[in-house]
Amino acid sequence: MSQAEIGLIGLGVMGANLALNIAEKGNRIAVFNRTVETTRKFYAEAGELQGQIVPCETIEEFVAAIRPPRPIIIMIKAGEAVDQQMEALKPHLARGDIMIDAGNANFRDTMRRFDALKDTGLTFIGMGVSGGEEGARHGPSIMVGGTAESYARVEKVLTSIAAKYESDPCVAWLGENGAGHFVKTIHNGIEYADMQMIAEIYGILRDGLKMTANEIGQVFGAWNRGRLNSYLIEITEKVLKASDPLTGNPMVDMILDKAGQKGTGKWSAIEAQNMGVPATAIEAAVAARSISSMKDEREAAEKILGVPSVGELAVADRDAFIKDLENALLAAKIGAYAQGFSVMAAASGEFNWSLPMPTIAKIWRAGCIIRSQFLDEITSAFTKAPDAANLIVTPAFAAMVKETDGALRRVVSTAVLGGLPVPALASALGYFDSYRRGRGTANLIQAQRDFFGAHGFDRLDGADSHHGPWGSGLNA
Amino acid sequence: MSQAEIGLIGLGVMGANLALNIAEKGNRIAVFNRTVETTRKFYAEAGELQGQIVPCETIEEFVAAIRPPRPIIIMIKAGEAVDQQMEALKPHLARGDIMIDAGNANFRDTMRRFDALKDTGLTFIGMGVSGGEEGARHGPSIMVGGTAESYARVEKVLTSIAAKYESDPCVAWLGENGAGHFVKTIHNGIEYADMQMIAEIYGILRDGLKMTANEIGQVFGAWNRGRLNSYLIEITEKVLKASDPLTGNPMVDMILDKAGQKGTGKWSAIEAQNMGVPATAIEAAVAARSISSMKDEREAAEKILGVPSVGELAVADRDAFIKDLENALLAAKIGAYAQGFSVMAAASGEFNWSLPMPTIAKIWRAGCIIRSQFLDEITSAFTKAPDAANLIVTPAFAAMVKETDGALRRVVSTAVLGGLPVPALASALGYFDSYRRGRGTANLIQAQRDFFGAHGFDRLDGADSHHGPWGSGLNA
Repeated sequence: MSQAEIGLIGLGVMGANLALNIAEKGNRIAVFNRTVETTRKFYAEAGELQGQIVPCETIEEFVAAIRPPRPIIIMIKAGEAVDQQMEALKPHLARGDIMIDAGNANFRDTMRRFDALKDTGLTFIGMGVSGGEEGARHGPSIMVGGTAESYARVEKVLTSIAAKYESDPCVAWLGENGAGHFVKTIHNGIEYADMQMIAEIYGILRDGLKMTANEIGQVFGAWNRGRLNSYLIEITEKVLKASDPLTGNPMVDMILDKAGQKGTGKWSAIEAQNMGVPATAIEAAVAARSISSMKDEREAAEKILGVPSVGELAVADRDAFIKDLENALLAAKIGAYAQGFSVMAAASGEFNWSLPMPTIAKIWRAGCIIRSQFLDEITSAFTKAPDAANLIVTPAFAAMVKETDGALRRVVSTAVLGGLPVPALASALGYFDSYRRGRGTANLIQAQRDFFGAHGFDRLDGADSHHGPWGSGLNA
Repeated sequence: MSQAEIGLIGLGVMGANLALNIAEKGNRIAVFNRTVETTRKFYAEAGELQGQIVPCETIEEFVAAIRPPRPIIIMIKAGEAVDQQMEALKPHLARGDIMIDAGNANFRDTMRRFDALKDTGLTFIGMGVSGGEEGARHGPSIMVGGTAESYARVEKVLTSIAAKYESDPCVAWLGENGAGHFVKTIHNGIEYADMQMIAEIYGILRDGLKMTANEIGQVFGAWNRGRLNSYLIEITEKVLKASDPLTGNPMVDMILDKAGQKGTGKWSAIEAQNMGVPATAIEAAVAARSISSMKDEREAAEKILGVPSVGELAVADRDAFIKDLENALLAAKIGAYAQGFSVMAAASGEFNWSLPMPTIAKIWRAGCIIRSQFLDEITSAFTKAPDAANLIVTPAFAAMVKETDGALRRVVSTAVLGGLPVPALASALGYFDSYRRGRGTANLIQAQRDFFGAHGFDRLDGADSHHGPWGSGLNA
């Protein structure tokens, strides 16, 4: 019997689905789970894929089953458990073997783990896998960080299991150590922003135009056939049209408005702050989830402050306004993605990764949660202009911004007057309007800072005079 | 000759001013600087305060001059230099002596330094000092973190040098280890937001209403006599009215619009993210400074995208609009301060500090950069309702929000339609509108998350059913 091409530890839902995907694509895989019962059950249910699967009940058996140098995917809960699993595995491995963390690790942990294996002969891959359970089973988007040599060992398997956009596999090697998990983190940060923007538009339709869930679902359905075509818009239609089996009401109307978060949105925001890159759309989305979780406080605040009593939204032509909402969402999305890509560009320098922007856009076109036609347009824009300072100044996106930002203005303005929260939409607009203005207002801030802290300033005319004529007496 | 009550190392501008302040208030102070010349010059220029100053040329002499237990203020560049200074000082100190870092340290460094001195018999105070050079010289706001015992040793000196609001000294012990530097960090985060909001209003007046710097200065001058009365509004008037000695133009018109930052705004945003507390106004302000620093990119983007061509602002009644701007700034300011205080409330739990909110507001009423009448109102609101979940639901501020948020809506709406960036103003409004809405839109986000990731949700009716009827086939 031939040896397995790869091994996988951790047969939870994600691990099991990934293993089945690997087996189904013709790769022989050894699997191991701490609880033997789980391994047996997994194997028993693998049906016709059993022929590609080597179920192992001991670590020794498992390691022996894999062709050296051994790539071993670890798919367990992120955090200390990964360190423990790595420690347990190490004594059984040999020079060249590759431990692959496919969980949602913080890329700083990945960098630490990668560094810790230096000079041991072993190596480490941090692999971001997006697409949820179904992605893992039928084709995820895969973002790989590690040495180029270790990627060469797993490239064939990963290419076979990755989602395909047309015929392009959604997998790529993005750089050493934490590059893969970093890019996955920013993917999730963008996902937060995208989802929040959709939720804000939903709020305008529900609370502003007083539409039912089903009616709103139809609007998103129509948009999914246009330029907003994407997985998130597609599922938005589906969830809005679904009925609650218990009450018969629209399902969404029965769901508590407290959104959870698992940390990747927050990590995106923190890393953007660390590098001084604006990521206000992601920050607005993370904040919106936090505020959503304060349900009791919000209900108490509504009793005290009231929802702004602005009556019906000031919308003269309902159809034109809904068209504006579609364009506004597209414009805002451009802002969020521009910020996400700028954060990655900065990180690429910061961590010596040379992250390939067109490639990242390319492998997000299918398999992952933010997959969309839009990402194909980003791929094309960055391919044509790989050194663009910002997505929004590439010709295609500059044209799109010019075409749609008027709608975003009208929507934010209308929502704001109507007391409807649009923090993420507004942040994208603020980003455009700050970024496209050659002469901003920071001259006033520099004057203030020099006044109270003698921080100094530069002059527009370049003259060699760096302090204002405030006089020391002014600041008494 | 009696011993000095306190010592100070580091006679840069801030240290020298602080030392003169201490001496002037009748406290005998020993001073030391690495460069002996600096010490000699400082002493020579101290004039009639020489009698209270003991200039020291060696560390041994310096330490011997101070009455034990010795409080020693270290006022040098934040970072490693502080650690080095502490190491150099340690061998000369005795049980009970207190090293006091009065620089702009990151509170996490302060916590580390505090912990490192445990079991040495020595102790550490992290002391936030706000008010710039003039504050240091004539009365800063002082935020102290350390043991209660060490504070007792320095309380008299600090009380004598602190700014006074009416007769209340602006100094307080806020908790152990990093409490003082943390509160100073959030002070600065709020300062960033406050300054950015002022800059956005300035932008509307300059670019929207086409007013001259001097005219805008008059507007701020009038506001400083109303409810916005504050140091920042006062200096805004002054800098707007100042003329450039080189060209005779308004000074601000000659200053390059690239704002610097020293890290405290960023730290505020990162710590807020770490704790999951919304701080979008601070984040918007930090982002605005970052975007301001990309001057070349902005000029290039303006060439490509153009500043939105919206013509004159849609303002029917100019005076009414300027009144709206005043109220909008007040409303937005409430949002920024509410966020800052919420971050401190969360940190208080996170780091076991019991931060006293009314006291913090109280010691910010004078001496520091954000000093204002407004902070007296916050002091009063938190004194009456120390357990309020948020500043904006205290009776006084709820009334103010209800009175002014309409103006903020109109201003944000007008600016947004006019292509003028108002990211911080808009973020404050988004914060109000999200926080005061009992039923938000996160139900849609929870539905999406359950659809693609089986994350589950809670129901409004509390029924024990946590997944939607999406069916596994939907997510293919």
